[in-house]
Amino acid sequence: MPRGSGRATLAPAGMQPPAQLGLCAACHGANGHARQPDIPDLAGQKADYLDKAMRDYASGVRNVPLMRGALGAIDPAQMRALADWYAAQPVCLPQVRRP
Amino acid sequence: MPRGSGRATLAPAGMQPPAQLGLCAACHGANGHARQPDIPDLAGQKADYLDKAMRDYASGVRNVPLMRGALGAIDPAQMRALADWYAAQPVCLPQVRRP
Repeated sequence: MPRGSGRATLAPAGMQPPAQLGLCAACHGANGHARQPDIPDLAGQKADYLDKAMRDYASGVRNVPLMRGALGAIDPAQMRALADWYAAQPVCLPQVRRP
Repeated sequence: MPRGSGRATLAPAGMQPPAQLGLCAACHGANGHARQPDIPDLAGQKADYLDKAMRDYASGVRNVPLMRGALGAIDPAQMRALADWYAAQPVCLPQVRRP
């Protein structure tokens, strides 16, 4: 279900987490909901945008050493898999009902 | 209501759109839901991250001429107001019930 649709949904059934997810999850969360205020949430973001942002970090168009280091060993296909994974993550998490 | 809370909410009542919103809305939408696949949604994103991203575009850390041009005449306080506006926008839009 695309972003902005109003319903919390889970990532498409059977979608396998990319092999390199751990690298991103350390800051962005495996589900794309980052905890720190200066780290972006990636859940439900546009896949094409995420893909381009990663390429810009790797090439230096976005001159952020931490991201360049993180993406240094990741090839374009792996970047695309990470972009697709995060784009598929639900933006709104189902609220936990407290007893 | 912070992002990821599971309920669609409207921006805080009485929050005035920043004067420069039109400049951003052309691509990102006034509500932060962009139409094009390679333009990021900004609704509900972390305000600190949005603020830093704008400063990076303006300084060239993010070397994207279009964004540098758009932000050229915007001062830090105005950037912060734009960041706060988009961070307050609902991530999940209420679904339109069709008759």
